[in-house]
Amino acid sequence: MILCVCLNPALDITYRVPALQAGASHTVHVAAERAGGKGVNVARVLTQAGVPATVAGFCGGRTGEALTRDFPAEFTPIRGETRRSVAVIDGASATVFNEPGPSVDFAEWEAFLGSYQALLDGSEVVALSGSLPPRVPVDAYAQLTRLADGRPVIVDAKGDALRAALDAGPAVVAPNRHEATSVLGHAATALEAAQELRKMGAADAVVSDGAAGFAASTVDGCWRISTPRVVRGNPTGAGDALTAALADGLRSGREWPEILCRAAAWSVAAVAVDHAGEIDEALAAELQSDVEVRPCP
Amino acid sequence: MILCVCLNPALDITYRVPALQAGASHTVHVAAERAGGKGVNVARVLTQAGVPATVAGFCGGRTGEALTRDFPAEFTPIRGETRRSVAVIDGASATVFNEPGPSVDFAEWEAFLGSYQALLDGSEVVALSGSLPPRVPVDAYAQLTRLADGRPVIVDAKGDALRAALDAGPAVVAPNRHEATSVLGHAATALEAAQELRKMGAADAVVSDGAAGFAASTVDGCWRISTPRVVRGNPTGAGDALTAALADGLRSGREWPEILCRAAAWSVAAVAVDHAGEIDEALAAELQSDVEVRPCP
Repeated sequence: MILCVCLNPALDITYRVPALQAGASHTVHVAAERAGGKGVNVARVLTQAGVPATVAGFCGGRTGEALTRDFPAEFTPIRGETRRSVAVIDGASATVFNEPGPSVDFAEWEAFLGSYQALLDGSEVVALSGSLPPRVPVDAYAQLTRLADGRPVIVDAKGDALRAALDAGPAVVAPNRHEATSVLGHAATALEAAQELRKMGAADAVVSDGAAGFAASTVDGCWRISTPRVVRGNPTGAGDALTAALADGLRSGREWPEILCRAAAWSVAAVAVDHAGEIDEALAAELQSDVEVRPCP
Repeated sequence: MILCVCLNPALDITYRVPALQAGASHTVHVAAERAGGKGVNVARVLTQAGVPATVAGFCGGRTGEALTRDFPAEFTPIRGETRRSVAVIDGASATVFNEPGPSVDFAEWEAFLGSYQALLDGSEVVALSGSLPPRVPVDAYAQLTRLADGRPVIVDAKGDALRAALDAGPAVVAPNRHEATSVLGHAATALEAAQELRKMGAADAVVSDGAAGFAASTVDGCWRISTPRVVRGNPTGAGDALTAALADGLRSGREWPEILCRAAAWSVAAVAVDHAGEIDEALAAELQSDVEVRPCP
């Protein structure tokens, strides 16, 4: 099983409007309301692919109830109210409003650690994704990586949370290039960023760069990965599909080129689906033969 | 007591962002979350002014629970989920996303009529404000006006709901000029619109025209009302404060010029407060001496 940690899940609300006009009043069509947050999206993609996955994190209040009704998970209850994320879709573009999320106190964090350790028992791989809610320790991902006790841990985070996680030596970090360079403190290509993240503590690193594909720096070598096919749609969940493929790859002990090929296909196939947390499976299967995984010197 | 009908209340969520950028992702500050909808705003202003008021309407689901926790009212429970309204405040401008609201079935409408008739017993004036939720009869406000059995009824509505209400001969209709002309089917000044709305069935009509003030056409004569002072802020609840002042004026049997002077002051004093459903009381008192109520030929 893959344990997907989503400390700051969100109720994702999608509105459709004919045309978003700043300063105006709009009557919206409520296109969707579902459980979201990066860790939930990772687990959704794994479940779709037939890979056993569970989600741990925090959940509270009425929004939390709505979230768990849509997506039952091993959430630790909190007094605060789970956040919402409102996406306003206007033609092809999405304008997103993310609430920061509820404060989590020390007792709630301790309760989560207990739940996390119990869930580790049945887990082969751990994926730690997304932002930390207010007042959760900034080294949360480092603590969870150490507690995983040798199980491969993938971290998809940014800023201080990513920086702190690197100290604990996770198996893979998988930020995007923008998130990676903000931690490095200077500009870098995806490959350069992956190489530096390894020096900072990650065993392996995969850095995505939007439509330009991504790069991997691992103990077995370095690769640049690209998909010739351009797919239009919603790129929000592409990184989560990539994390899902990496987690499943580590679980099944595949070789890196095969893992990376599948990760690229899933990532692009996620763009083709309107909402995050799902891939176009037929497209993913097709794309796998198009993906180019080129070793780097 | 004034009975404020709010068939389609909303949970008003206010986000603050440094700058709204279409197509971008924003981390928001949740500035407020409170019960809203035009009828709720009318009752809030009346309560603030010390005038007994109650709210009747529909309420359901988790959003409905959050709404009634903030603002206890005589709501009829429904199976559907009460709507949300999201306002994104960016500097001085507000971009608003209104959900259409839950469908209300015939049994729920009948249950509301029972509750409404029971509440009429203790009510001196009725205010019918805002949009109708999906599947509520389009002549809802006409039905409620007739059931009021001679009690003065004020209608602040638009489109088909306003058109149908006029047939039942309400005491006052109080749309804005844009809403009024859309029912008339042609351009008109606020005063012309008020005069035509009387011909269409209203005993008296008050038509607001934003910063230009408003006009009234009544059995006692016609007036143009203006406030020399320019107040900047959020105009969302200005119409509801106007309705509140009209309702209180009808209740206390004041003369029209006095009612209109107070209505203008409350309306402008609502703009000075960030959120709808509240007036700046000190400003309202000051403004009353500035308001110009000029009889028209």
